[in-house]
Amino acid sequence: MAVTPLTLPDRFGAVTTACQDHWMATTSMREALAVGTRPVELAGHNPAARPLAPTKKNRDLRNDLAQMRGLQDRLYAESTADGTRSILLVLQGIDTAGKGGVTEHVVGSFGPIGVQYTAFKAPTEEERAHDFLWRIRKRLPPAGVIGVFDRSHYEDVLIARVHDLVPEDEWRARYDIINDFEAELVAGGTTILKCFLNISFEAQRKRLLARLDNPDKHWKFNEGDLEERARWSDYQSAFSEMLERCNTDVAPWYVVPSDHKKYRNWAIGELLRETLVDLDPQYPQPKLDVAALKERLTPPH
Amino acid sequence: MAVTPLTLPDRFGAVTTACQDHWMATTSMREALAVGTRPVELAGHNPAARPLAPTKKNRDLRNDLAQMRGLQDRLYAESTADGTRSILLVLQGIDTAGKGGVTEHVVGSFGPIGVQYTAFKAPTEEERAHDFLWRIRKRLPPAGVIGVFDRSHYEDVLIARVHDLVPEDEWRARYDIINDFEAELVAGGTTILKCFLNISFEAQRKRLLARLDNPDKHWKFNEGDLEERARWSDYQSAFSEMLERCNTDVAPWYVVPSDHKKYRNWAIGELLRETLVDLDPQYPQPKLDVAALKERLTPPH
Repeated sequence: MAVTPLTLPDRFGAVTTACQDHWMATTSMREALAVGTRPVELAGHNPAARPLAPTKKNRDLRNDLAQMRGLQDRLYAESTADGTRSILLVLQGIDTAGKGGVTEHVVGSFGPIGVQYTAFKAPTEEERAHDFLWRIRKRLPPAGVIGVFDRSHYEDVLIARVHDLVPEDEWRARYDIINDFEAELVAGGTTILKCFLNISFEAQRKRLLARLDNPDKHWKFNEGDLEERARWSDYQSAFSEMLERCNTDVAPWYVVPSDHKKYRNWAIGELLRETLVDLDPQYPQPKLDVAALKERLTPPH
Repeated sequence: MAVTPLTLPDRFGAVTTACQDHWMATTSMREALAVGTRPVELAGHNPAARPLAPTKKNRDLRNDLAQMRGLQDRLYAESTADGTRSILLVLQGIDTAGKGGVTEHVVGSFGPIGVQYTAFKAPTEEERAHDFLWRIRKRLPPAGVIGVFDRSHYEDVLIARVHDLVPEDEWRARYDIINDFEAELVAGGTTILKCFLNISFEAQRKRLLARLDNPDKHWKFNEGDLEERARWSDYQSAFSEMLERCNTDVAPWYVVPSDHKKYRNWAIGELLRETLVDLDPQYPQPKLDVAALKERLTPPH
């Protein structure tokens, strides 16, 4: 399960060696994409890999949506009785990695009643006046709901670190705070699926160029994106340490190879599907006197 | 446009006369389903009508989802520049009328990033301690977003009236308060689409029976549903007055015949599509020096 880094990428180069073939031995997406328990370097994860994918490219990369919707319905139904369970999908990744695409294509497959989506932007003045988890706690999914975090509390050990927004001892302390926080959520009934959308430097280049080539996508572009890109290496270090420090038993990280969009969506769909299957939610079975109720519904009532 | 009631239903009977054929003269769903400006009785609206539907039953009742998604994307994009516009879809209707079905099938067709769904349940103690619009204001859609209210502030002139939760002079005063409130929202850039899902007494009977026949739907059933049904006439009166008093120029009501589920979904999809077409949102066109940016993206950057 653990991943041993074989090579380091050149300063801004593409990863050339994949060592994620431990997945050959499993049929579980959660096992295939798990970070493992040993220290990780992102360099050891190939962003163009396709663990568990059928061999023909982009074929059959479809999730069983009917099964997923059915299970989602049960999860929601369960919460109307005494169910306390929920799912929290955390999406992290550098600009263009595909957080929006996953939301559109994967999250969009679920029914809106049981989904709560939140994009965390730069914190407002009010949010900055509180501890970094304050705004996160306000958006946790209630029972029965699949919560989606498009960016999350992890920004506070990512951008906060890369841009020196807080002193090092402050962001370093956050790894433990986050682990405690997530353990508390899990104990309360939330299953946390933390997905790091892993793309290569070259894939990001192509996607940014594609945005520039399409005037209808210019609104997604700002020059700050290129300045962030110039800090690629710093972000890779920050991501690696996040994956290492916050890969806990109760809330493990998954590294999702994201150079191939269809694969990325399918893989995250599978992570959700497997999680729902394991939760095995059930429809509440209230004791109804069906015969008597039907009698009350015979015309003209 | 205005609807003249022709007959009243018997106490608990089905509506037998349709007078909604004013829609023969229009191709706009908003015109076809408008309440009109004269006092209305729900008795004048046939819940099984299919205004504007193609003649073959349940055929071609498909919205142009690609167009709708494209327009939604533009509405959202617009808000990232200086756009202030949003849409608020209000769904009202008696139990089983299909608020959940519309959410699933119509709202679910849009991308989750630009949708904010809220189901208003019986108010909490905290909510009751504030004026009735307090909890509503907290869930208004921000710019760029399609907000969906599954029940709404209208409950405060419906269940509050039928169950005498507040004195008559208090709920009577709310019509004007609601009209002022909605005018304020519209002035702020929100287009409000208020849909009353109109089903017949008989259609509700069949749907409740169907729930009883399916153990997986028992969780949706409680005996209180039948007590509410026994107040059908009171609710029809409350709905009628709501439609009359709050059918304003800036925020008109639409009566959506909802005995046929596919028709109902299609019709509300069309109301949304027409609204989006009229808004005609545009992608922001920031001034980018595309050539210079591309240069910065030539390898190895």
